[in-house]
Amino acid sequence: MLKLCILGGGFIGRFYAESLIGRRGKDVVQVVYARREETAKRFAEDYAVPHFTTDMEEAIGHPETDLVIIALPNYLHEEAVMRCVAHKKGVLCTKPLGRTAEEALRMTQACEDSGIFAGYLEDLCYTPKFLKAVKSVESGAIGRVLWAKSRETHPGPHSDWFWDLEKAGGGAILDLGCHCVEISRNFIGKEVLPVEVMCWADTQVKPIEAEDHAIGLVKYENGAIGQFEVSWTFRGGMDLRDEVMGTEGTVWINSFLRTGFEMFSSGQGADYVAEKAETSSGWLFPVGDEAHELGYPTMFVDMFEAYEKGTQPRETFYDGYVVNAILDAAYKSAKTKLWEPVQLPVWRGKRGLTKPSVYTEFDADHWLIKKEILPNGDHKTILKHKTTGEVSTR
Amino acid sequence: MLKLCILGGGFIGRFYAESLIGRRGKDVVQVVYARREETAKRFAEDYAVPHFTTDMEEAIGHPETDLVIIALPNYLHEEAVMRCVAHKKGVLCTKPLGRTAEEALRMTQACEDSGIFAGYLEDLCYTPKFLKAVKSVESGAIGRVLWAKSRETHPGPHSDWFWDLEKAGGGAILDLGCHCVEISRNFIGKEVLPVEVMCWADTQVKPIEAEDHAIGLVKYENGAIGQFEVSWTFRGGMDLRDEVMGTEGTVWINSFLRTGFEMFSSGQGADYVAEKAETSSGWLFPVGDEAHELGYPTMFVDMFEAYEKGTQPRETFYDGYVVNAILDAAYKSAKTKLWEPVQLPVWRGKRGLTKPSVYTEFDADHWLIKKEILPNGDHKTILKHKTTGEVSTR
Amino acid sequence: MLKLCILGGGFIGRFYAESLIGRRGKDVVQVVYARREETAKRFAEDYAVPHFTTDMEEAIGHPETDLVIIALPNYLHEEAVMRCVAHKKGVLCTKPLGRTAEEALRMTQACEDSGIFAGYLEDLCYTPKFLKAVKSVESGAIGRVLWAKSRETHPGPHSDWFWDLEKAGGGAILDLGCHCVEISRNFIGKEVLPVEVMCWADTQVKPIEAEDHAIGLVKYENGAIGQFEVSWTFRGGMDLRDEVMGTEGTVWINSFLRTGFEMFSSGQGADYVAEKAETSSGWLFPVGDEAHELGYPTMFVDMFEAYEKGTQPRETFYDGYVVNAILDAAYKSAKTKLWEPVQLPVWRGKRGLTKPSVYTEFDADHWLIKKEILPNGDHKTILKHKTTGEVSTR
Amino acid sequence: MLKLCILGGGFIGRFYAESLIGRRGKDVVQVVYARREETAKRFAEDYAVPHFTTDMEEAIGHPETDLVIIALPNYLHEEAVMRCVAHKKGVLCTKPLGRTAEEALRMTQACEDSGIFAGYLEDLCYTPKFLKAVKSVESGAIGRVLWAKSRETHPGPHSDWFWDLEKAGGGAILDLGCHCVEISRNFIGKEVLPVEVMCWADTQVKPIEAEDHAIGLVKYENGAIGQFEVSWTFRGGMDLRDEVMGTEGTVWINSFLRTGFEMFSSGQGADYVAEKAETSSGWLFPVGDEAHELGYPTMFVDMFEAYEKGTQPRETFYDGYVVNAILDAAYKSAKTKLWEPVQLPVWRGKRGLTKPSVYTEFDADHWLIKKEILPNGDHKTILKHKTTGEVSTR
Repeated sequence: MLKLCILGGGFIGRFYAESLIGRRGKDVVQVVYARREETAKRFAEDYAVPHFTTDMEEAIGHPETDLVIIALPNYLHEEAVMRCVAHKKGVLCTKPLGRTAEEALRMTQACEDSGIFAGYLEDLCYTPKFLKAVKSVESGAIGRVLWAKSRETHPGPHSDWFWDLEKAGGGAILDLGCHCVEISRNFIGKEVLPVEVMCWADTQVKPIEAEDHAIGLVKYENGAIGQFEVSWTFRGGMDLRDEVMGTEGTVWINSFLRTGFEMFSSGQGADYVAEKAETSSGWLFPVGDEAHELGYPTMFVDMFEAYEKGTQPRETFYDGYVVNAILDAAYKSAKTKLWEPVQLPVWRGKRGLTKPSVYTEFDADHWLIKKEILPNGDHKTILKHKTTGEVSTR
Repeated sequence: MLKLCILGGGFIGRFYAESLIGRRGKDVVQVVYARREETAKRFAEDYAVPHFTTDMEEAIGHPETDLVIIALPNYLHEEAVMRCVAHKKGVLCTKPLGRTAEEALRMTQACEDSGIFAGYLEDLCYTPKFLKAVKSVESGAIGRVLWAKSRETHPGPHSDWFWDLEKAGGGAILDLGCHCVEISRNFIGKEVLPVEVMCWADTQVKPIEAEDHAIGLVKYENGAIGQFEVSWTFRGGMDLRDEVMGTEGTVWINSFLRTGFEMFSSGQGADYVAEKAETSSGWLFPVGDEAHELGYPTMFVDMFEAYEKGTQPRETFYDGYVVNAILDAAYKSAKTKLWEPVQLPVWRGKRGLTKPSVYTEFDADHWLIKKEILPNGDHKTILKHKTTGEVSTR
Repeated sequence: MLKLCILGGGFIGRFYAESLIGRRGKDVVQVVYARREETAKRFAEDYAVPHFTTDMEEAIGHPETDLVIIALPNYLHEEAVMRCVAHKKGVLCTKPLGRTAEEALRMTQACEDSGIFAGYLEDLCYTPKFLKAVKSVESGAIGRVLWAKSRETHPGPHSDWFWDLEKAGGGAILDLGCHCVEISRNFIGKEVLPVEVMCWADTQVKPIEAEDHAIGLVKYENGAIGQFEVSWTFRGGMDLRDEVMGTEGTVWINSFLRTGFEMFSSGQGADYVAEKAETSSGWLFPVGDEAHELGYPTMFVDMFEAYEKGTQPRETFYDGYVVNAILDAAYKSAKTKLWEPVQLPVWRGKRGLTKPSVYTEFDADHWLIKKEILPNGDHKTILKHKTTGEVSTR
Repeated sequence: MLKLCILGGGFIGRFYAESLIGRRGKDVVQVVYARREETAKRFAEDYAVPHFTTDMEEAIGHPETDLVIIALPNYLHEEAVMRCVAHKKGVLCTKPLGRTAEEALRMTQACEDSGIFAGYLEDLCYTPKFLKAVKSVESGAIGRVLWAKSRETHPGPHSDWFWDLEKAGGGAILDLGCHCVEISRNFIGKEVLPVEVMCWADTQVKPIEAEDHAIGLVKYENGAIGQFEVSWTFRGGMDLRDEVMGTEGTVWINSFLRTGFEMFSSGQGADYVAEKAETSSGWLFPVGDEAHELGYPTMFVDMFEAYEKGTQPRETFYDGYVVNAILDAAYKSAKTKLWEPVQLPVWRGKRGLTKPSVYTEFDADHWLIKKEILPNGDHKTILKHKTTGEVSTR
């Protein structure tokens, strides 16, 4: 049994609480901190949390706090982490870890130096579909991964601070791209070095300084390519999709808007349908158990098990730092319009990987290009001569 | 924290165990019983259960047993329940409750008379999608329910006893129809009396005495119609779909074969894909968290909460008995080829409901039939004169 | 090149015209008849038809009429066909052929006796998906057909006469069931005798005498089962789905509401979306080329080719008559609540078919029940002893 | 009635022929040319073409040739077009128009100077779904277009010359990107200037010089962004999807792999399933009428109507040239790793468009950022102060 302290009583803090209670879990939320007393109090009442406070220091240092869960705006992550370090309390931090890799690396190293447990709350790397897909990919079901795309778009975040560039540290890239980048890294292999990033970003719809739409490409050392598509301008709900291409197969995951649950309503009995849904009549696409589909309960299980066993969780502060480094390069690229190198002063994965050969032997003289059955039933083999390079058909 | 005893170490017992462990739940499986020692031992090892035995009496009476979970073949349910009654232990029984309503009613009454807690493990009435859909329907999102269909088909069950008519008590109707009937009841309203049943059943493919394919219609007192489609002959995986039509809307749930997770594999790295999947190459449709999508964890949460609070769970033995009564009528109908009345010696719902009127007033003289926009943009209103019955268009 | 005469200027006549023009076809509509001059005139203008009239006799006998297309309300089909017979003009009749099998048989025999060409305009047996599926099924891709269901539901027809029981001859069963029954016949095999029908029908929503919702089962002599689900009460658009189960496979066709075209609109620029769509905002599911997806152009190609070559089209008046006979039994069953025999005074298919054996040999002593791979990777073979009947596992 | 001459008897020539015959069209293929006599002869036999030849000049100049359809490898397009110009015969050319914009512009200008009819056979801009979607977008259903992506990936082309860089002029970008770019242009508006392109391309799997996988971004003058994803390395069939985001809505089109037709087969009766399908057992996703879904018949109708009326078709040589110019920039970008300007020596669209303002007024002092309903039912409006820039919530 773990005693938890949640810092932050807003949207994400509440989502966390809902994932932690009501499932007969043995872990309990004992302390909640929010900046406004009213928020802290409402939270404590709603989720039966015995202690609430507007003093972060008190919350972290509380005797009933084993493990701290940071659910604060981005600009407060570092401060909160450093306080946990000071109190030698284990810490879980919501995504993105930092506003920049520099921030994230400081947090990572502070935790490592002090020996406290630190977990990166990257929920979308814990969805049931994602975990099963990663396992299949790791088992070789789709061969070598060539491309791993993740898309997260919706009509914009819920809390006001997101829309303030200074507090948020960025726009859709930082808010949503952090998910997408880490999803791609999991499929491609976390040990594979991200080399450089190209990113387009724009503010197309919202009256804000930050970007509300961006698309990025991340080149990995082994020739694989990551892609993210993020936006706060999407209409129709929350679109969460991952697609992976491998030499032997394909993965398509739809985590939210098309999950096998469809409802038409003429509009009577209108109700909350799903996170970021835009309508309550016509064709609706609710999600069964949102928190579960979004990975929260599974994420906390992994975190708490690792904390108790003294092992590393699937997603660590180091991962959060690598993600921030890739996003830093994305932001830079969006300005310079160049492929920007990913700056990783600390890198613990492999180095020197190269792209595998594209040559598959057909016979002593030929490489195989392709085998196929045509509409009229003809079988066709397309070959390339090893020395002349001539393409021929059999 | 509850201490659980599982009776039965086969497919369903293991599925239950997997839903109960590994999620940081506070409840623990302390005792397992299986008919064969080898099975009991393997189960105990796999799920870290401290006590195993081949003596059912010992298992139920064990001091570490708070609540008994029956995961035995159908013909052993009654015996197991009666032993729980004797030991005054709470009991949860897998579906179907009995082989017949008579059996089910005896179990229901024995538990009620002795005052022990009794829950009916109808997992498919606890899937996240189903629960949310029922809530929407209850809130009026689709108006009055007209038709509630549930379909469960797959290539046949895993255990040998299913194929033995005496032990199983029936074929696909009993094995799968119990889910479908209870799903329909939830949508239509459990308080609505099921009146009569028409059922077609046949043995089309399997060399067995029981039916491997059946379709049934269940008329309810308020004019709603329930439908089940069940089969052990389906090819392509496990097809679990519910469809509901209401006067104001529609619900479509796909619980297994199309849930937003698609994978193509040329066949390398073949692996277990999903319950009753038939292939491990080509296009595959895995399910993220199978146990969760099938309702197990949520079901146990409801059961254990109710047990602790002394309330009734969503699905009770009484519900299991009503389901059996409907299936009894289905079996009879399959033989007599008649609409067979549902025999319910005990009925606690409403009586005397009638079908609502179909008349919606348009104006003093007319009933409204329909409003529509045609392809060319014309608006059309179709009316029926209240006295002449003449149909007209505006 | 064929010169066509269309009888009827309403919804279906216009749909036919739109399928016949604008595709650079060599066939031309030369004559149109409608009961009201205004309708005939508008039709002639819209589709550039040179001759229009309110005199049916004149239309059929017109020198520019090679082939007559009947797009009239059900109660006028027989009269129109008989006039074509009198004029020795080829005739194509919309569905259903008759209001009863008796009517349909008279039409069939009158055409055959006089030697005129007669085609049954069962468009849904000509959709591109359906034709390809039938071809696959006929080639054995799903083995022996066990069950063929077709579902057509929508919020009710466009024209007023549909809602008048005398003119329409029936409700949703006749209007929609005719499609479903013929779809099932194509999958099961037109040569297989339909034996008996069970049907539930009710008027649940609309203030009419006819049924607005029905479900039927049709037993075929070879043990296959057909199913239809029809309704005028469905909410959400037009739901056209076929499902077929075979011993070796499965077919799922969605012809209208989920065809790979999804659109979300906040409601600006509202427009006609699709036949029987109910909304123009929120998530919408338009159909690319409606007429083509509904089979019209392909149907006319088949009809006209057959007419020119002097062969039979895929769908003949005889087929229309068989469909009517099955629907007659359905109507009777809905009243008597019994399985009603299909009355076929004329039957040209096979007789005496029996259900194939369900026994597949595993070895000298055993029948095979099932092979399977379990979640833990175990392989399992379930057998039945040929003489003892004992079920065992390997 | 038009008399057609097809140049090229390979895969695409056959696909064209199949779209032109068997639908009772009034147009006829009278002449076919292929480089190899055997190919020409087989083609003539298969499609009942009266004249076949291996002399291109003869084919074009043939008295039975009204209109020439070029279905030749890319490196022969210009030669063939110039011969049509010499003979003053109308010409339709398959995609891509040229290997480079320079080639394409020469073809465009030669045709325009000589006054012959010239149509660009961009079939995927004629699919039924695409045409209806474009119409909806043009009618304002999704507001201002922000992003238009098109994806075409499959396991590689059928003919050997595609794999020869010199003959093809490029790899997946040229072969598939031409579709995607023109699809985006249609959604964004053909009059909007494409400004610059960023492209990643690689040869990941095939032993060829050309790229087998590429992703590109195309910036348009009005701030909209086009995206293409193309590959010859995709596993699982042919993936054709378009996605469009607008300020008021979304369009998702799946043109091939998920169109509402699903089939499972254990493998018996294996057969041709669909273009570039990879398996004939397991879950299969056939397409109803492939040619129609891919836009061929509709494309020819538009071309022939325009030819006869002396108007421009939807897709002209000029469009083909613009597409080539964008792809030229993509190829350059893939090498320079820079955003490369689109070189358009001839441009007939608008110039000087700017990105619309992102500011929507809420009240005198505030811009509106977002309105939302939260899970707990709270309504929220997020505002930005016009002068202070402060973000607030109501």
